[in-house]
Amino acid sequence: MATQKTGGLAGVSAGETGISTVGKEGKGLTYRGYDIHDLAKHASFEEIAYLMLYEKLPNQKELNDYKKLLHGQRELPAALRLVLEQIPAKAHPMDVLRTGCSFLGNIEPEASAHDVNSARVVTNRLLATFPGMLTYWYHFSRDGKRINTQSDEEDIASHFLYLLHGKKADKLHHDTMNVSLILYTEHEFNASTFAARVTTGTLSDIYSAMTAGIGTLRGPLHGGANEAAMAVIEKYSTPDAAEKGLHDMFAQKQLVMGFGHRVYSISDPRSDVIKQWAKKVCDAAGDKVMYPVAERIEKIMWDEKHLFPNLDFYSALSYHFSGVPTDMFTPIFVFARTAGWAAHIIEQRNHNKLIRPSADYTGPEPRAFVAIEKR
Amino acid sequence: MATQKTGGLAGVSAGETGISTVGKEGKGLTYRGYDIHDLAKHASFEEIAYLMLYEKLPNQKELNDYKKLLHGQRELPAALRLVLEQIPAKAHPMDVLRTGCSFLGNIEPEASAHDVNSARVVTNRLLATFPGMLTYWYHFSRDGKRINTQSDEEDIASHFLYLLHGKKADKLHHDTMNVSLILYTEHEFNASTFAARVTTGTLSDIYSAMTAGIGTLRGPLHGGANEAAMAVIEKYSTPDAAEKGLHDMFAQKQLVMGFGHRVYSISDPRSDVIKQWAKKVCDAAGDKVMYPVAERIEKIMWDEKHLFPNLDFYSALSYHFSGVPTDMFTPIFVFARTAGWAAHIIEQRNHNKLIRPSADYTGPEPRAFVAIEKR
Repeated sequence: MATQKTGGLAGVSAGETGISTVGKEGKGLTYRGYDIHDLAKHASFEEIAYLMLYEKLPNQKELNDYKKLLHGQRELPAALRLVLEQIPAKAHPMDVLRTGCSFLGNIEPEASAHDVNSARVVTNRLLATFPGMLTYWYHFSRDGKRINTQSDEEDIASHFLYLLHGKKADKLHHDTMNVSLILYTEHEFNASTFAARVTTGTLSDIYSAMTAGIGTLRGPLHGGANEAAMAVIEKYSTPDAAEKGLHDMFAQKQLVMGFGHRVYSISDPRSDVIKQWAKKVCDAAGDKVMYPVAERIEKIMWDEKHLFPNLDFYSALSYHFSGVPTDMFTPIFVFARTAGWAAHIIEQRNHNKLIRPSADYTGPEPRAFVAIEKR
Repeated sequence: MATQKTGGLAGVSAGETGISTVGKEGKGLTYRGYDIHDLAKHASFEEIAYLMLYEKLPNQKELNDYKKLLHGQRELPAALRLVLEQIPAKAHPMDVLRTGCSFLGNIEPEASAHDVNSARVVTNRLLATFPGMLTYWYHFSRDGKRINTQSDEEDIASHFLYLLHGKKADKLHHDTMNVSLILYTEHEFNASTFAARVTTGTLSDIYSAMTAGIGTLRGPLHGGANEAAMAVIEKYSTPDAAEKGLHDMFAQKQLVMGFGHRVYSISDPRSDVIKQWAKKVCDAAGDKVMYPVAERIEKIMWDEKHLFPNLDFYSALSYHFSGVPTDMFTPIFVFARTAGWAAHIIEQRNHNKLIRPSADYTGPEPRAFVAIEKR
């Protein structure tokens, strides 16, 4: 049946999308036609989520209404809190979000798997509650503290940092988080989005698709890369030590996470943006070690492997110095990508066809069954 | 970037597999070389699960040990029971399994995402507990009854029917369930398996991949088809009424579920097998309505649409007359496919490459950002 042999579907089109593109030269990024640089410079994450869900940038009134809507949906249902309380502190935070999302699907099921509005309703609820799910579990599992997830903070970036730290976020940390959420929102047929589309292709519900997205993002070859990048940066106390360490990693054929990209070949346009913000956050924290270490790693990777940092690499530094624990880095990616997943789920439904590829068979030839007493 | 335009990746190879094949003519089905007819006739589902996980049919001692292993793992952890108790009776049973699976990943995480043995450990635990998760929730949410999920029944088919009905299953119902589990175990790069492979491709954990599989199977274009098939069969009280009803559905361009298949073009070899068992179960129940209705539907679909019944169609009847509520049909598919998913997760890991296709961009051309006050 198979007509083409491929590895990981690289360069194979799995369908059409109107949501984002890296452009004809494959080196930029636009969301519904808007350049990522403009969006990161001028917009709030909520405008981007709105752009994903409603296919246009909101005007001021629409944005105010949208923020109010999200603000009003931050509280977690009692049953969900009880579920989160059963999860131990040593659990992987991505497992917590995957489970929280899946559970919510039982008590607040999607009204219809065919209606664009029901997808928006669920998505907005998830956007509003994910920071609360993560931090409720975090504080309860560590300190037995049941936090109130209904903060008065204006947006998702400030809301998350407030719930995490129990106090208002520093403006620079807020602004950096906001930019980071914008950059992480959407990236065409990346693995987690593609998984969400495969799930949607059977006409399943949006919670199933989101859950598939979270589980796929969790892996170190995808969202998990920002945590893996931090682990490498943290290992070294000087740029020279990093250089030596990297050579050791090369010799052992270890992958260095946070570099290269399936779709980009020369650079990741998002990296330049987040690097500037990471620099500011590092400077404000008085860091004299990690940023220089990171820059040296960047240089070595380029000089010796011709690999460039992707969004994950400097994001890691910006989160670290905003006081975010490393194992929450990928969950932040979820907060943002939820909006992108939703846009793809809606798009897949609008032109649905079951996603079911073929395979090249490499297994045993037909063979006779052997009765159990003769094995 | 895209080099080929496709719809739903139909006929496009997404990689290699040695687990199952429909054969060169695309009309059979073998699991690791063994014909599905032989397996359904001579084997138990546990032998097939073993074949999936350990790549060979077990001898008698291996099978005994394997059954004992599964038998010893049926009990649900207290935290999981508490989670299941939070799920209302009206929830979708697939959401219950998706959530139960995801939650278990928090409290019994996979030891390593790189080790074939850790994948087997988790898979066996899921095979052993899925029937218990489903029925514990079912009885608790309806009657407030906390059942003991550690039955003494010998295999998964009898264990499930025992937990569901609170008594030993009729031999015919047990045997039919066993055959059904065998037939549902594995089918190459079907949508749920492909989703599990996409998730695995980022080197995520097996619970994430299984959760993606369940969420994808849930849709009516995939596993949900057996429930949808039942809904159609149940509607009619005579074959003539069914014939008329089908013509109405055709006129309204409604899909009739349980017919046709992405990979088969003339018939589904599994359908002939399950149809014989469904006939026996219907006869034993004294049915004079549903089986004749189903056969008429089969005839009309072939005569007028040239579509053949797939595995889902007669499976529905066999479950119905075994006393299984309709919304548990797709969960039974999960009990079986878990073994197939596991084989693919292990295979994907053994030759891993990130699954990340391209897309054809059809969205807006690059456009200037508009400041919010000018929108």
